[in-house]
Amino acid sequence: MDELIDRLDNTFRTYQPEHYELPPRGGFAYTTPVTGLLEWMPIMHAGNHITLKIVRYHPANPDRTEMPTILCSIGSYNTDSGHLVGLADGTFLTALRTGAASAVASEALARPNATVLGVIGLGAQAVSQVHAISRRFTLTEVLGYDSDELAMQTFAERVAPLVARDTEIKFQSAETIVQSSDIICTCTSIDAGAGPLFDDTTTKPWLHINAIGSDFPGKTELPRPLLERGAVIPDFREQAEREGECQQLSPDAIGPELSTLLKQQVEHSGMRDRLTVFDSTGYALEDHVAMDMLLEYCEDAGIGDMVQLESSIGDPRNPYDFGLGRRERQALESAGDLIAG
Amino acid sequence: MDELIDRLDNTFRTYQPEHYELPPRGGFAYTTPVTGLLEWMPIMHAGNHITLKIVRYHPANPDRTEMPTILCSIGSYNTDSGHLVGLADGTFLTALRTGAASAVASEALARPNATVLGVIGLGAQAVSQVHAISRRFTLTEVLGYDSDELAMQTFAERVAPLVARDTEIKFQSAETIVQSSDIICTCTSIDAGAGPLFDDTTTKPWLHINAIGSDFPGKTELPRPLLERGAVIPDFREQAEREGECQQLSPDAIGPELSTLLKQQVEHSGMRDRLTVFDSTGYALEDHVAMDMLLEYCEDAGIGDMVQLESSIGDPRNPYDFGLGRRERQALESAGDLIAG
Repeated sequence: MDELIDRLDNTFRTYQPEHYELPPRGGFAYTTPVTGLLEWMPIMHAGNHITLKIVRYHPANPDRTEMPTILCSIGSYNTDSGHLVGLADGTFLTALRTGAASAVASEALARPNATVLGVIGLGAQAVSQVHAISRRFTLTEVLGYDSDELAMQTFAERVAPLVARDTEIKFQSAETIVQSSDIICTCTSIDAGAGPLFDDTTTKPWLHINAIGSDFPGKTELPRPLLERGAVIPDFREQAEREGECQQLSPDAIGPELSTLLKQQVEHSGMRDRLTVFDSTGYALEDHVAMDMLLEYCEDAGIGDMVQLESSIGDPRNPYDFGLGRRERQALESAGDLIAG
Repeated sequence: MDELIDRLDNTFRTYQPEHYELPPRGGFAYTTPVTGLLEWMPIMHAGNHITLKIVRYHPANPDRTEMPTILCSIGSYNTDSGHLVGLADGTFLTALRTGAASAVASEALARPNATVLGVIGLGAQAVSQVHAISRRFTLTEVLGYDSDELAMQTFAERVAPLVARDTEIKFQSAETIVQSSDIICTCTSIDAGAGPLFDDTTTKPWLHINAIGSDFPGKTELPRPLLERGAVIPDFREQAEREGECQQLSPDAIGPELSTLLKQQVEHSGMRDRLTVFDSTGYALEDHVAMDMLLEYCEDAGIGDMVQLESSIGDPRNPYDFGLGRRERQALESAGDLIAG
C-alpha cells in the first residue's frame, strides 16, 4: 500500500495526457435479473502497453451470492504484438488503488495532523480506505456508519489488523461523523437518485472528503450545498461530470483534476484549511499503475500461473493448428483429415 | 463448423434487436511500436449474459513474432452476479465464426450450384473461409492469390485437409480470380487507404463476394464501381458504414443487414442471380453465438481449466480476505497483523 500510494502520487505529478489515450469507460447497466453493471475501462500508454479492466458491480452480491459487490479482472496487453501479458483479479486491486488514491488526495487536501477519520459505508471499499489513510495519517479514531447491520458488526474485525493498535474504532450516526471528522471517506452502494447520504450540516472548516461511491449517472452521495461550499477535485473530470459528485455542480464550480492540483501544489496549499472533496469516480490511470506494480511483484516473487490462452505456438497462418509441431501435424495429415468433419 | 453455421443462420433469422444491447466496438489504433489495433466488442443478451471480446490485430505478427495477426480472448459474464463464467482464446473462434458467417451469407446470396471459390488473401482467415464455404457448396476449384509468397506456398497444405479430395487448389492473379469465380472471399490485411485490392473488371453476373478484410476506418478491399453495381449486405450496418466496404457507399446504396435479409428471404431470392457483397466487418453477435457453443462443448467434454481468478470465496466485505476460512483467519490474526506492513 505504501508503495502504491507513492507510485500513484508520482504518476499524478508527472502525468502527461498527450502520452496516454483514455477513452471514457463504457458499459451495460441493467435491472434484470438483478441491478447490475458491467463496464470496460481502457487506457493506453502510447507506444507502450494497454491496461483494460472489466469491472462488474452487483450490490446484492454479498447477501445473495456471498460474492463481492465488485468483481473485476484486469488485463495488460503489449502494443508490440497484442499479447496478453497478464490477467489478474481486479477486486483486490480496485480496492487497493481506490484506497491509495484517497491517501494521495488526502495528503494534498487534508491537514497533515488530521486524527479523526470518518467512514460512511462499511463494505469492502471501506477496508482499503482505512488502510490507505492510516498509512499517511496518525489516526486516533475511526468513526464508522453503515445502514447495513452486518457491515457494522464486522467492520472492526476487518479493519483492526490494518490500523495502529491505539486507534479507536467507534460507530456514530452519519451526521455526527460529518460534524466530527478531519477526513471522511464515503463508500456506499447508494442507488442512483437516492442521494444524499446525509443532510447538509456543519463540519470542521478543514474537512476533507474522499467521495468514492459516486460512479454512475444519477448516483451521488453528498448534499449539493456542501459540495458548493467546498473545493471539488475530480480524479478525471470528463467522467466525474457524467458519473461523479460533479454531476451536481455547474462546470465553473468544479476544481482542477487531482493531477493538475498536485503539479500546482504551491498555489493550492491553502486548500488544506478549507472544505475539500476528492470526487473519486475510479480512474483507469490508477488501474494502470496498480496493475503494473502487481505484475512486477508477481514476476519478482514468481507468483501466478502461466495459462495457455492465446493460440500462439502453432502456424500463425493456420487457425486450426493448435500448436502442433510440423512432425505431429504431418503424421495426423497422413493419417486422414485433421479437422474436416 | 456445420453446427456453428446452423446456429448463426438460426440466430440471424430469429434475431430481435430489442433483446440485445450492442454498442459499437471501441478501440485503440496505433502505429508505434508497430501498426496495431486493440478493440473491445461487447454484446449483452438482456437479462441473460454478456459476451465481451478483446481482439488485437497486428499484421506484422506472423513475420515478426510467429504469432497470428489476430490475437483475441473472449469472456462470457452472467448478469446475475457479474461472474466471469468462461474465458477462451478467440483467435480460433474468430476465424471459425467469420467463416461460418460467410457460409450463411453465401447460402442466401450465391447460387446453390456454385463450384468455383476464389480467395484473395491467404492468411489465417482464408483457412476457415474455405472450410466453411466447402461445407455448404460442392467446390471443384479453389483459386487463391496473396501478395505474400510464403502465404501462397503454404496455402494448399493448410486447406487441403478441409476440402473434398477432388477439389483442385490453384493460384491465379486477383483479376483472373474475380473474373472466374462463383463465390469470392477477400481476407487481406490491406492498409487503410491502400485499397482496392484489384481494379474493377467483369465478373460472372451471379458472383457473390464475402468481403471480410474491411474492418477499420479507411480500410477497404473492393473497387467502388463493383460495390455500386452490386447489392451490398452488411453484417451490422452502423459498424459497416464506419469500418466496412459500406464506407464507400452513400447510405441509400446500402442493402439490408444479413439478418433482415434472411427474415425476408422470399422477397430477396432474386439476389442469387446478381452481383452481391456480404460486408462482413465482424459482428459481436457472431462471437456471442460461437462462445456459447464453445462453452457448451467444453462443459460436455470436460475440456478446459478451472482458474481461480475472482476473489470470490472469502468474506465479500473484505478485499484482503483471500479466501481464508474463518478459522485460518483467526489463527493469523491472533499471531499478529494479517496484512498491515
